[in-house]
Amino acid sequence: MKNDAITSRDVDFAKWYTDVVTAAHLAAYSSVKGCMVIEPNGYAIWEKMTKILDDKFKELGHVNVAMPLLIPEGLLKKEGELVEGFAPEVAWVTHGGLKELEERLCIRPTSETLFCDYYKDHIKSYRDLPKLYNQWCSVVRWEKETRPFLRSREIFWQEGHTAHETASEAEAETRKMMDVYRWFFHEILAIPSVNGIKTEKEKFSGAEYTLTNEALMYNGVALQAGTSHYFGQKFAKAYDVKFLNKEQKLEYVYQTSWGTTTRMIGGLIMVHSDDYGLVLPPRIAPKQVVIIPIGKDDSIKELANKYSEELNKNNIVSYVDGSEKSPGFKFAEAEVNGIPVRIEIGSRDLEKGIITFARRDTREKIEVSKDTDIVSYTKELLDTIQKDMYDRAVVRRDKLTFEAHNLDEMTKILDTQPGFIHAMWCGDVKCEEKIKEIHGCKSRCILENAEKIDDKCVCCGKEAKHHVIWDIQY
Amino acid sequence: MKNDAITSRDVDFAKWYTDVVTAAHLAAYSSVKGCMVIEPNGYAIWEKMTKILDDKFKELGHVNVAMPLLIPEGLLKKEGELVEGFAPEVAWVTHGGLKELEERLCIRPTSETLFCDYYKDHIKSYRDLPKLYNQWCSVVRWEKETRPFLRSREIFWQEGHTAHETASEAEAETRKMMDVYRWFFHEILAIPSVNGIKTEKEKFSGAEYTLTNEALMYNGVALQAGTSHYFGQKFAKAYDVKFLNKEQKLEYVYQTSWGTTTRMIGGLIMVHSDDYGLVLPPRIAPKQVVIIPIGKDDSIKELANKYSEELNKNNIVSYVDGSEKSPGFKFAEAEVNGIPVRIEIGSRDLEKGIITFARRDTREKIEVSKDTDIVSYTKELLDTIQKDMYDRAVVRRDKLTFEAHNLDEMTKILDTQPGFIHAMWCGDVKCEEKIKEIHGCKSRCILENAEKIDDKCVCCGKEAKHHVIWDIQY
Repeated sequence: MKNDAITSRDVDFAKWYTDVVTAAHLAAYSSVKGCMVIEPNGYAIWEKMTKILDDKFKELGHVNVAMPLLIPEGLLKKEGELVEGFAPEVAWVTHGGLKELEERLCIRPTSETLFCDYYKDHIKSYRDLPKLYNQWCSVVRWEKETRPFLRSREIFWQEGHTAHETASEAEAETRKMMDVYRWFFHEILAIPSVNGIKTEKEKFSGAEYTLTNEALMYNGVALQAGTSHYFGQKFAKAYDVKFLNKEQKLEYVYQTSWGTTTRMIGGLIMVHSDDYGLVLPPRIAPKQVVIIPIGKDDSIKELANKYSEELNKNNIVSYVDGSEKSPGFKFAEAEVNGIPVRIEIGSRDLEKGIITFARRDTREKIEVSKDTDIVSYTKELLDTIQKDMYDRAVVRRDKLTFEAHNLDEMTKILDTQPGFIHAMWCGDVKCEEKIKEIHGCKSRCILENAEKIDDKCVCCGKEAKHHVIWDIQY
Repeated sequence: MKNDAITSRDVDFAKWYTDVVTAAHLAAYSSVKGCMVIEPNGYAIWEKMTKILDDKFKELGHVNVAMPLLIPEGLLKKEGELVEGFAPEVAWVTHGGLKELEERLCIRPTSETLFCDYYKDHIKSYRDLPKLYNQWCSVVRWEKETRPFLRSREIFWQEGHTAHETASEAEAETRKMMDVYRWFFHEILAIPSVNGIKTEKEKFSGAEYTLTNEALMYNGVALQAGTSHYFGQKFAKAYDVKFLNKEQKLEYVYQTSWGTTTRMIGGLIMVHSDDYGLVLPPRIAPKQVVIIPIGKDDSIKELANKYSEELNKNNIVSYVDGSEKSPGFKFAEAEVNGIPVRIEIGSRDLEKGIITFARRDTREKIEVSKDTDIVSYTKELLDTIQKDMYDRAVVRRDKLTFEAHNLDEMTKILDTQPGFIHAMWCGDVKCEEKIKEIHGCKSRCILENAEKIDDKCVCCGKEAKHHVIWDIQY
């Protein structure tokens, strides 16, 4: 049954989004303006995300550290572009206890400065390189408009900061980590993303260039979720991070940084979920299977427990909902919380020799013989759901992918239905600014090695240099 | 060989401590006064601690959440005792971006207020109870004197905050979590601790009572590492957290909180480590075994890799140090980093049919036949080391445990060699304050159900009520 607490997605997408967040107990508003409480259901998804990504980072040789939460103003100001980008949106600590501080401190909006400050003292020679450091933490940016998971004053994230001997090694790292994000989106979150390079206007302050992972939401709006920056020697020069190279000469290190945030949870909702609540791809669902015994028969409960044990033993995370609630209530609760598979066991069905599987993604019910091998059947069903969710997301993305050859076409698309708009661009920031006037549409990324779809810029008509994807964004 | 970078423990304990922290790359000083950088080796220990504790918390039904980093001043001030305890030591955010805030926000020094603020809106009925929430985060307290892991302005920790229907259930939770900490110290960290109840003077601001886990360091100074608080309805009344009980009456919830921090890393150092660097009990060591091939013979390297693979397959975390450094350098590096077991494989030894194991704790070298079953031998050796480290710590603690029957005796002990001093106490805070005048000695905890060792208070000579352990502290 339709969940009354959830506005229909096609009626009011923004309201639907916050309704799903609330109904699935992912996050709640707090008394701290612009900061959310991540509730157990939301945090469990974040824990699973961190576990999978962290394992992958470590497999690739990265290690975790913890840098301080605070940055002295003087340290922040050393890199001009960075401070210009962040100064208007940092939170300032001015008092410690009852005393005013001599130098105010900001709560980190990002930690390049802190990593550089550490590397400056701890990198002496090429033997100390590469440094492949990462940290899981929260950062603060004083945003004006906030929405749970998408934009908030406190952001939970991971930030990798690496230092290398050579430009080519650092550039390879920048790309490697973008590939990790792409893999995570496609294989784990079942979200087809596009990857490319940010324009000068849209790149990270202080980076030589920024690679980005862009996903398309159900309503055609883009979500940037995962960026990887190549810094060259910019930060190293600002923070004096030098090393003795193999030729025994002092040289500045080459650096990268890369990050993803709890925005990915927002992406999961806006790509996969529906009017019944959250829908989670099995590989990221903290609980993959719920088993619901129907009726008070003890043998049914025992069977439910037996199935659950077998599934858990085989690395399928399941639980039995043995609470006092009615079966209908339990079904709805499992639906709103996005449990990928529900197994219903009832005595009448059992007499007929069947048990019922329900897919969360399609809401389809499947009756199977009670003699079925539950473990292998469930495993296969979860794989099918994962694949189907990805395939449907691809179809939706393709349906919302357009091509524009002039500003009129672009305007018409954005007036009707936003989406990924492929169009050629001359490379001039003035054209980007003009396009932004159409509903705030921005360049998402420059596609690399992409075919030319026109000779001329979609905006000014001058010679086109880049094949760019454009869209409005979260 | 003795590590030159490390001051001798018996010459200057404080200097020895910071030397070990630095030499083992556990933490580094940062440009942010009073905040440390936790380096990869230190963070790996913290990750292993969090993993083991988090699994145990979850096994007991707890779930993780994330509360905001910031607390509005008005919210903090609702519970009088708490704010009195923390106001002199919080960091205040007064500006967001370029604007002064209407209400200043403190960086959380602890999160009781935030949990209560959330519970107030999310607990309606006994059906919503218990709430067994925990969070892993950092908190900030504007300490004047700081030392890595022991006292710093930013503290990494875990804070559990639970809400219950009845006092007895909440009290049971308070004790259960203290048992978890005790288990963790004894079984995992190989640190024998004593547990008891804090005096009114030393309990957590706002708690009805505080249970504590107190460990004794090598130099006889106590370290409080893990506390569990019973709040009764104090916070619930201040923050209006009510629920409809089974009798359909509105009642305030009963609450607990409990926490441990990276101080435990400081404890590991000060209980187990030596003049050669870090010594880690195998169960908490992120890397348990290092294998060092001696010489350039490829077959030796292959054998080292084969051993390492077999150990890892059997859940013993090992690695091969195949770097270009000299064997002596590698030995010293593994020692300073506290790797519990070192396996040396050399061609000359192999010809004689032996390989060499070295224990980090005793620095003993053991030659074993190359036909030994490496996995089971290593497993057994790690267990022996774990047990021996615990046993030695018990012996040291017992040697530094004293009894005092009057202030003169107490003074003499503290003048000579601090340690756990057992003495009777009348219960009057004035006696606690007088005892504090002796080198800052404080009550560690009141022992529960302990034998009486005197009829009179160690200080005033009046009737004794409690058997208390006293000591100076970190």
